[in-house]
Amino acid sequence: MKKNEIDYTLYLCTDRGLMSTDTLEEAVEQAVQGGCTVVQLREKDCTSLEFYETARSIRKITDRYKVPLIINDRVDIALAVDADGVHVGQSDLPASVVRRILGPDKIIGVSAGTLAEALQAEAEGADYLGVGAMYATSTKEDADVTTIEELKEIRKAVGIPIVVIGGINKNTLENFKGYGIDGLAVVSAVIAADDIKAAAGELVSMFRS
Amino acid sequence: MKKNEIDYTLYLCTDRGLMSTDTLEEAVEQAVQGGCTVVQLREKDCTSLEFYETARSIRKITDRYKVPLIINDRVDIALAVDADGVHVGQSDLPASVVRRILGPDKIIGVSAGTLAEALQAEAEGADYLGVGAMYATSTKEDADVTTIEELKEIRKAVGIPIVVIGGINKNTLENFKGYGIDGLAVVSAVIAADDIKAAAGELVSMFRS
Repeated sequence: MKKNEIDYTLYLCTDRGLMSTDTLEEAVEQAVQGGCTVVQLREKDCTSLEFYETARSIRKITDRYKVPLIINDRVDIALAVDADGVHVGQSDLPASVVRRILGPDKIIGVSAGTLAEALQAEAEGADYLGVGAMYATSTKEDADVTTIEELKEIRKAVGIPIVVIGGINKNTLENFKGYGIDGLAVVSAVIAADDIKAAAGELVSMFRS
Repeated sequence: MKKNEIDYTLYLCTDRGLMSTDTLEEAVEQAVQGGCTVVQLREKDCTSLEFYETARSIRKITDRYKVPLIINDRVDIALAVDADGVHVGQSDLPASVVRRILGPDKIIGVSAGTLAEALQAEAEGADYLGVGAMYATSTKEDADVTTIEELKEIRKAVGIPIVVIGGINKNTLENFKGYGIDGLAVVSAVIAADDIKAAAGELVSMFRS
């Protein structure tokens, strides 16, 4: 998968604590069946071996549906399963270091809450930005909120794709129309839905309309 | 540093919770001044960015004293600071996967508590084994204890260097003489000592005598 051809429309971040299914595999498969275009595997509080085994398992699903798999934070897990890329936050390895490790062809995404973080991420070689949190959410209660004004400034200042994250759902997504963003990053709006496939499909349709 | 020339005599595992100094940098520098021949940086409960910054800082010390730096668990942190190697436990990435990521020249160490684990580690490309825990310790209260009998079996079965770990100090090290082990892996016996340098020096002298 060429990284400049990635469709960022509906970018799923996994969260075991919120998923409505028994297994993460079921949740991810239903989400990509519904239309999620990117999967970011995020695992906290597990061993490296568990993270690796989950990544191998999720990788099979994303390969089958030809959807890129991005690993949150752990560059070694991404290398271990030959994932399509890595997403790093401001407390993870710097994007420039990740680029040095992964080489030019892998996708590197960076969380940016401010214009300064966005500019730095692009300068360090990020391929896309996750901008937010746009709203305070239960997933990241302590996250500083990024305003629409800041989002507009970031969109004007950087050339790489932007997905918005943090409280994105079918009620809030209308607020981002017309700002030139490339996609919606979602957690609970998809993975916690009673019908994950339908929830993903609805968000994709709404974003594209 | 060529990996087949490593001196495993006194292998320090760091532990911030036990160190007698204000900073980890002071503890490590005093330990290598006292004669520690390998440093394994072990960090838990910190962000990837913090781990990376600590590893960069410790790397400067180990480079200055020409002592190999091994990173616990995190292959990405090892790559980020070009450490000499990685140490993995049974809950970390498999040694075979780490070897694929790191290539042939980096040191890979594996924790082995049983003969089966030791044989598998060697088969997967480990360069040395950390065998233990030889005693129950405050550092790893839940660790299963490896008996001297098992250590002897492991020593007979594998060709790679062995360091013993878990409750190794100046009182217990006499129990390992004559078994062909290559070094002592220590945590609190060095890092928690009032005089870290003297404690390291004493253990080196006792092991070599």
